Amino acid sequence: MKKLSTDPYKGVRDFYPEDMAVQNYIFNVMRRTCESFGYCEYSASILEPSELYREKSGEEIVNEQTYSFKDRGDRDVTLRPEMTPTVARMVAAKRRELSFPLRWYSIPNLFRYEQPQRGRLREHWQLNADIFGVENTEAEKEILVLAHRLMKNLGAQDADFQIRINDRRIMNALYEAFALSLEQAYAASKAIDKKNKSTLEVFKDSLNQIFNHDTKVDEFVATIESPQQLVKKLGENNPLVQNLASLIDGLSKIGIQNVVFDPTLMRGFDYYTGIIFEVFDTNPENRRSLFGGGRYDDLLALFGNDKVPAVGFGAGDVTLRDFLETHKLLPSYLSKTQLYVAVLDNAFSEANGFVDTLRTAGMRIAVDFTSKSVGDQLKKALTDNIPFFVAIGNQEALQQNIKIKNLTTREEREFKMSDVGTIVSFVG
Amino acid sequence: MKKLSTDPYKGVRDFYPEDMAVQNYIFNVMRRTCESFGYCEYSASILEPSELYREKSGEEIVNEQTYSFKDRGDRDVTLRPEMTPTVARMVAAKRRELSFPLRWYSIPNLFRYEQPQRGRLREHWQLNADIFGVENTEAEKEILVLAHRLMKNLGAQDADFQIRINDRRIMNALYEAFALSLEQAYAASKAIDKKNKSTLEVFKDSLNQIFNHDTKVDEFVATIESPQQLVKKLGENNPLVQNLASLIDGLSKIGIQNVVFDPTLMRGFDYYTGIIFEVFDTNPENRRSLFGGGRYDDLLALFGNDKVPAVGFGAGDVTLRDFLETHKLLPSYLSKTQLYVAVLDNAFSEANGFVDTLRTAGMRIAVDFTSKSVGDQLKKALTDNIPFFVAIGNQEALQQNIKIKNLTTREEREFKMSDVGTIVSFVG
Repeated sequence: MKKLSTDPYKGVRDFYPEDMAVQNYIFNVMRRTCESFGYCEYSASILEPSELYREKSGEEIVNEQTYSFKDRGDRDVTLRPEMTPTVARMVAAKRRELSFPLRWYSIPNLFRYEQPQRGRLREHWQLNADIFGVENTEAEKEILVLAHRLMKNLGAQDADFQIRINDRRIMNALYEAFALSLEQAYAASKAIDKKNKSTLEVFKDSLNQIFNHDTKVDEFVATIESPQQLVKKLGENNPLVQNLASLIDGLSKIGIQNVVFDPTLMRGFDYYTGIIFEVFDTNPENRRSLFGGGRYDDLLALFGNDKVPAVGFGAGDVTLRDFLETHKLLPSYLSKTQLYVAVLDNAFSEANGFVDTLRTAGMRIAVDFTSKSVGDQLKKALTDNIPFFVAIGNQEALQQNIKIKNLTTREEREFKMSDVGTIVSFVG
Repeated sequence: MKKLSTDPYKGVRDFYPEDMAVQNYIFNVMRRTCESFGYCEYSASILEPSELYREKSGEEIVNEQTYSFKDRGDRDVTLRPEMTPTVARMVAAKRRELSFPLRWYSIPNLFRYEQPQRGRLREHWQLNADIFGVENTEAEKEILVLAHRLMKNLGAQDADFQIRINDRRIMNALYEAFALSLEQAYAASKAIDKKNKSTLEVFKDSLNQIFNHDTKVDEFVATIESPQQLVKKLGENNPLVQNLASLIDGLSKIGIQNVVFDPTLMRGFDYYTGIIFEVFDTNPENRRSLFGGGRYDDLLALFGNDKVPAVGFGAGDVTLRDFLETHKLLPSYLSKTQLYVAVLDNAFSEANGFVDTLRTAGMRIAVDFTSKSVGDQLKKALTDNIPFFVAIGNQEALQQNIKIKNLTTREEREFKMSDVGTIVSFVG
């Protein structure tokens, strides 16, 4: 018989308990942060009709980067590469029943068919937080405060990250100021999005092709590289410029000062319609985008509805975990099991009764039924990073007294077995 | 432009916040129960190499019932239809580093390609709890106590469910006592597994074919339908019979008395090697299997390792949810958001500062920035099932006093805005 491989599928991860603890730590901070802003959790299947991604995700993503296949009923199915189309579908489906504004979050797993590399795997999880039904910039403000708070709740300092912000409508005004056609504008936006992945020469070359070798390229590059110059080009009284400035100012007033206007920020997805943002690591060793989002007011219209204004972001677990590792912000692993019970002299029924009472009181306890020596049972508790240890044998059963040892501090204390409250507070 | 459908893919579910609350309630009880027994959470990708399921899941499952496709690298990929092969793969991969016994749990989503019907969807979630590295029946005992505790923690009474138990080795001894060949035994076990889905006649017919129309069929049916007769056939001193009796007796002694020996219980998967069990709903309207599991000592040998003894079970969310609905055990929905803050007179900065302090103290708060009337803002809090409400306007900002209303009891209390501790304990 052929031996089966123990490797997972290419580009995906197994989560052993210690990896899962890290994952759960990150997910719990995400949940706690979103819920502190009144966001409600939703979810959906990873399987979606492929047509959901054809229109608005950007062509490259659907054609080259998704897991898509035909099911046996000849339906085109895709493993979701992102959550925004799904949440748009769900909101559109119950548009008349739901009470707006909606504040929703989810932590779905997403699939991309691409070569695995640092920070990019074929499967990753991503916090999605969105607010639906708000037209004005209060929505962007709340989403940015939430994103900032997420970073702080993960232990980051303001100096560890920067929030770069732009507005697709400002860029459109700029393309117009440079008299670009719609096709040229679209191509220029894609070139700007790729800018930081290559050299300035490559970027200028691609703009030269888009602009038909016009001399405007140098001026265009200088304009998007300097917010001041861009503001001069559009005019300080331009309402879009004023709106963005007022958002940055409002954030600054409530203590969020690591926000900058960056006209080279584009984001890949085609569906954004207004303000977009990305959170960047400021560490020179990990200077990269951590996550981002923006406004997408037109997406729900794809389902044949009126527009529903929407602002949100997606923050992936892989990049956040890299960030936390780089900045030494990951907590060290300790088992969630609080107490390890070694059983001696086959005192199983005595041990089980005791453990049963403690479990009912909410404690998390593993019982060792190997009948090994007390030393071997203690070793197992230490190996498993369980913080407290107790041995129960004939003597303990007779005297109804036990000694619980704190394996971290090595403190040992004696308890009556019936003294559940005291035991819970010692171990808890 | 073609209008996109808002329907999810066939046979899968969207989880709107109220559905998600039910799902999270069930998952939280699963987590709490497993962790109270010292089980550690693990996880893995839904994508697995197809070969993982070919050998031991039962042919029907892989060939007809899975989502399988070729990726662009010509790899055969399957969306996992069950978790046991994955956890076996993970344990086999780190067999030399892991410290046994292992107590592990996970709540993965699983995929089956089949016609959706009540209790059977194309995607469902399933608690998997397993113990690895224990040869004796203490492992089965702990797993059965855990399964029983799960039902109790979900609010079930002992009378609401029954645990049926059997042993594949007892069945093999029975097949031998009836002088069946290996092929006949395998076919008989499959026929028994299907028994409850059809009539006694159909069952006897299929056995007649397997037994080559021998007269033994009536005796065989009578034997598996009566545990007493089966025990007589194998002999009371048969060690397998004694082992099972001692397990049932041991459970009874610690207060678990709804366990019965049922020789017609088979379970579908081929990989079980010893004791198997299923939890049944006793309600006449929902008399069906809720979940089950058993011992599978040979599965890890598929990865070229020595055997690693293993016992576990899988409990699906769809059947459990049906059970909880039937028995009226689902909690009613209340938003996790504790406080809804209405903002009047554009007192946004005052409201934001106040909310910021409360969030830092751990509270979950939604702020309304619609500037609608206080009545409209209150209506939104009621619609969203948020339990507490406060309005902040110029007057509150001036006096630094607020009135928080409990929307359930209609009690209203006045607080100083600086009195965070008192507010947290009123709302918490």
